[in-house]
Amino acid sequence: MEPNSKRPCVVLLSGGLDSATVLAIARHEGFSPHTISFRYGQRHQIEIQRAEKIATALGATSHRVVSVDLGQFGGSALTSMIPVPKHDTAEEISNQIPVTYVPARNTVFLSLGLALAETLGSQDIFVGVNALDYSGYPDCRPEYIAAFEKLANLATKAAVEGTSRIAIHTPLIEWTKAQIIRRGLELGVDYSMTISCYDPDAEGRPCRHCDACLLRMRGFEQNGLVDPSCSSAD
Amino acid sequence: MEPNSKRPCVVLLSGGLDSATVLAIARHEGFSPHTISFRYGQRHQIEIQRAEKIATALGATSHRVVSVDLGQFGGSALTSMIPVPKHDTAEEISNQIPVTYVPARNTVFLSLGLALAETLGSQDIFVGVNALDYSGYPDCRPEYIAAFEKLANLATKAAVEGTSRIAIHTPLIEWTKAQIIRRGLELGVDYSMTISCYDPDAEGRPCRHCDACLLRMRGFEQNGLVDPSCSSAD
Repeated sequence: MEPNSKRPCVVLLSGGLDSATVLAIARHEGFSPHTISFRYGQRHQIEIQRAEKIATALGATSHRVVSVDLGQFGGSALTSMIPVPKHDTAEEISNQIPVTYVPARNTVFLSLGLALAETLGSQDIFVGVNALDYSGYPDCRPEYIAAFEKLANLATKAAVEGTSRIAIHTPLIEWTKAQIIRRGLELGVDYSMTISCYDPDAEGRPCRHCDACLLRMRGFEQNGLVDPSCSSAD
Repeated sequence: MEPNSKRPCVVLLSGGLDSATVLAIARHEGFSPHTISFRYGQRHQIEIQRAEKIATALGATSHRVVSVDLGQFGGSALTSMIPVPKHDTAEEISNQIPVTYVPARNTVFLSLGLALAETLGSQDIFVGVNALDYSGYPDCRPEYIAAFEKLANLATKAAVEGTSRIAIHTPLIEWTKAQIIRRGLELGVDYSMTISCYDPDAEGRPCRHCDACLLRMRGFEQNGLVDPSCSSAD
């Protein structure tokens, strides 16, 4: 039996490549994963459908979709009609924070993950943030995650009562996209189910030119593979 | 002209006594306050209507209601059908964390306040937490607020770019309820508009026996006044 067997954990699941890999890792570590996705005003709802499929395929114990309207704040190409930047290769991606950044998104998502963890009596929250191929988002950095973990341990009833300690698990944080994909394939993740594109077409096919597409295509190439997501039937 | 004139700030507004006072303080300090209320699955929607009235009466620059479904997690008497505890006097209130605690609520609300601040280009978030008459909630303590402020300054684009610093203002944190009321009255807050009760009747009249009612009634009494909220027409 695995060391964490039946211990509940929360996994933030976006429908993308990274969080699907994290779910597989949490299962592999023996946790009983409760997945949570967010309807946050994103232009593309297909990621919510994909997250549900991935939760089922990778054996999540429960799956929830929580609505929170970040779109009404505006300020991001993922929730407003600001155009998504396009490039020809991953090398052209700038290391500036891009317009696809959604203000305070990971803080909101982690907070809701914390609310779920607290009601489940879980001490473990898994999130697929990545500080290498991360498109320059501030809320994907290790120091940010450490600050959230500290906050979580002051925020909850269990923390005050001293009965448990929350851990934020970020297994991908120091991995390249190629390493993430390699680990996911070892654990049986079917990446054709995942969608990372910031600007898919109406059928959910990736654009192949946004930062998210280019980074994942390069990750598959570096493993001698072709990204299967463009051939995925939805 | 006040020192902060026209500087935008975000004020978390619940419809209760504390946050109404905070809004008056932010205005008095010369800020241009943008208020935000939450439809979070609370059993009583009347607080959302009251927050809107208060925002108008106290001159908020803008007011938003953001929906986020904490109710689907369960675990609180404020969002589930768990009975709200009742007492005869404020002295009977235990210092245990009560069933009215909503898991991770302030963390979720502050995160959404941070998202709004970031899109407004504001560096100032006001919240009416109180560590004295606070019903024992973990996420009302000074160390919790300090941890959130630290997180906020790692979470945002402006923080990474070094262009601004977020401050979490908690003007009430060390005040008694009596002091809060005294300051609010000086600043012209009409407390008959506010509602603090955890269990109001269908017309929005307070129960007068939950922790929130007893603490505020005692605060008015200590100022030689009667809580006007029971005589408020809605």
